[in-house]
Amino acid sequence: MKPMGPIPPEYAGQRGMLTIAGRTAPDWLAQRDGPVFVYDPAIVAARVARFRAAFPAIDLHYAIKANPFPPLLAAMAELVDGFDVASAGELAKVERLGRPVSFAGPGKRDAELSAALTAGVTINLESEGEATRALAIAERLGVRPRLAVRVNPDVELRGSGMKMGGRPSPFGIDAVRVPALVRHLVAAGADWRGFHIYAGSQALDPQAIIDTQAATIALAARLAEEAGQAPPLVNLGGGFGVPYFAGDTALDIERVGAALETAVAARPAILRDSRFAIELGRWLVAEAGVYLARVVDRKESGGETFLILDGGLNHQLAASGNFGTVVRRNYPLALAHAMGGEATETVSVVGPLCTPLDRLGDRIALPRGDVGDVVAIFLAGAYGATASPCAFLGHAPAAELLPRDHSD
Amino acid sequence: MKPMGPIPPEYAGQRGMLTIAGRTAPDWLAQRDGPVFVYDPAIVAARVARFRAAFPAIDLHYAIKANPFPPLLAAMAELVDGFDVASAGELAKVERLGRPVSFAGPGKRDAELSAALTAGVTINLESEGEATRALAIAERLGVRPRLAVRVNPDVELRGSGMKMGGRPSPFGIDAVRVPALVRHLVAAGADWRGFHIYAGSQALDPQAIIDTQAATIALAARLAEEAGQAPPLVNLGGGFGVPYFAGDTALDIERVGAALETAVAARPAILRDSRFAIELGRWLVAEAGVYLARVVDRKESGGETFLILDGGLNHQLAASGNFGTVVRRNYPLALAHAMGGEATETVSVVGPLCTPLDRLGDRIALPRGDVGDVVAIFLAGAYGATASPCAFLGHAPAAELLPRDHSD
Repeated sequence: MKPMGPIPPEYAGQRGMLTIAGRTAPDWLAQRDGPVFVYDPAIVAARVARFRAAFPAIDLHYAIKANPFPPLLAAMAELVDGFDVASAGELAKVERLGRPVSFAGPGKRDAELSAALTAGVTINLESEGEATRALAIAERLGVRPRLAVRVNPDVELRGSGMKMGGRPSPFGIDAVRVPALVRHLVAAGADWRGFHIYAGSQALDPQAIIDTQAATIALAARLAEEAGQAPPLVNLGGGFGVPYFAGDTALDIERVGAALETAVAARPAILRDSRFAIELGRWLVAEAGVYLARVVDRKESGGETFLILDGGLNHQLAASGNFGTVVRRNYPLALAHAMGGEATETVSVVGPLCTPLDRLGDRIALPRGDVGDVVAIFLAGAYGATASPCAFLGHAPAAELLPRDHSD
Repeated sequence: MKPMGPIPPEYAGQRGMLTIAGRTAPDWLAQRDGPVFVYDPAIVAARVARFRAAFPAIDLHYAIKANPFPPLLAAMAELVDGFDVASAGELAKVERLGRPVSFAGPGKRDAELSAALTAGVTINLESEGEATRALAIAERLGVRPRLAVRVNPDVELRGSGMKMGGRPSPFGIDAVRVPALVRHLVAAGADWRGFHIYAGSQALDPQAIIDTQAATIALAARLAEEAGQAPPLVNLGGGFGVPYFAGDTALDIERVGAALETAVAARPAILRDSRFAIELGRWLVAEAGVYLARVVDRKESGGETFLILDGGLNHQLAASGNFGTVVRRNYPLALAHAMGGEATETVSVVGPLCTPLDRLGDRIALPRGDVGDVVAIFLAGAYGATASPCAFLGHAPAAELLPRDHSD
């Protein structure tokens, strides 16, 4: 038997049939032919409220790459101070939602820069070459470009799932070259918006985030001093993780918030009028989403029992362990009809794809499951539907569902 | 510096500008806005011809999961003896192409079984439960079901990239239970089509395949004897690999073919009237496909040089090392304008996605590459476009292109 990650607290206390946003799992599935992702906006709103309480003086941006489902973005527009996008395609999804937008990501094509400049969004520049192209395109369009500089920091986020600082990187401009670029942007007449500094993601150690945020503020101040320019905004990045696997514990964001309040209160003089933002994706939405699929077959082989679902890595690649993890570990999952039920057998839960990669639960302890039962895979709200190869093996995509208000 | 896999022989000898199916790489890219996959049907046809010469008495099936691009399937219909599909969605793509079809894969839904039975395709049964459902649905439809039994063999394919036999498995029915199931199917009036035995994939060691095929024939004979039924067809599976990485060498299929001819000539009496088939996906199409993308940015960071492309793991996940490989290694890639050119620098080639996972070439030696240059990633004909998360981060999908005939 192998362990699973912890079921999120919003669902872990349920007994009997799983309900999501007030409706049962089979009720959600009855709306569509095949597996579904259900996102509970109340959980997202609660996450935002918790952030607001912990970080009263910090702006909150949503990085839509985590989940760009349009109804979720519409709900999020009421809750956050800005959207961060990573392509012109993402920009198109938020530009009519009335919130400030910033655009980060390496390899922005000229057409993407043009769309962003036309829309008046802030471009987080990833290289000097991109700066040159953005200035030229703005000139051609006759607009004053809103440009921030993404910094490749000389610090990394310890213990983060993905390190994005402290090493050679496609992301951002090495800190040592940033002051000269800022001076160049200001001299060229750009509306310089400040810094974007992102040191890693999926961190669960609060002290690591606290240290990184303190180092990031110090770095921003040093770069601003060297550039002779006070940044209107310092985007501190995010990096708040969620517990996916056995042994993971939820991040203590209140501790991070208290430390950041202290650090901001003691910030160097050049940052006196700067705003600070934290950009979050996964932490806001991962636990709000549940992937639901049905058991199509139950079979025995070599003394093991397999439950075979009607959806798998084609819908939720990350849960199969094939997206950014070296060692495959089990996401939390449950039989929807037996929440809180006693485990009576060890089974492997697999998807319908004709490949051994399509394994969603490897030798996990569950109550009895049979053909027709619903399996819920938690933590499906971030990097799920859009981060999966939905056309693989010719199965239909999963539907995504979000209740319009809390009463439906 | 890290090594790359070998450029396929069909392209490795080129000098100067890369041509694919008679047209230059920039010419292919000029047809679309953004990256493209180009598939050369002449390379596929040459692969089939090589198979035919090496395996004159063996049927050849194409497993369309490797690449289900409709124009490729239309070309393939002229070349192979049958198609293998893994979902009703794949079935819909081939059912009007006039070739025999078989359908394998765990978790076939009732609607999929119904579609397959209506179309008269052979269903490779993966469990006793599936057999029961298929018989019931056939009865309801008033058709005589064409049913084969997929066997979970008690042998595995040594050295295969993915083992699919010799262990508890979601695929097939454990050999020990197969004779009883065959007797049951025949007694129920089904048109029993034989066995499907697939022990692994992506094997490059000819002796391992030879041993597996010999064991598979022996197993089929033993199961047929125990069932008291001669199988009309024995699908030996495939497992022929292609060289992706440094140190890989191409499979000697002529050696495999000679050994199989001997094994088939000496087959047990109960298989005297059986046909034998080999089912191939990757080996037929991987090297026929090239993924082409443009350099959008060239940047330096921490002493390393990065070339940033306008497409990455959103189009070609496998080349990023995030699909079924534990250790990330470099696929072969080249600057299209400098085929055969001397490497003058070490660069990392990355996609445009705002994630460190999007790395296509890690510290590889290349000739000089600049913004606007075309990068070719080879071995993109199998498990490329459809096995990648094309919606991730909101970029457009890559176009797929196949010349209609060899003159265009």
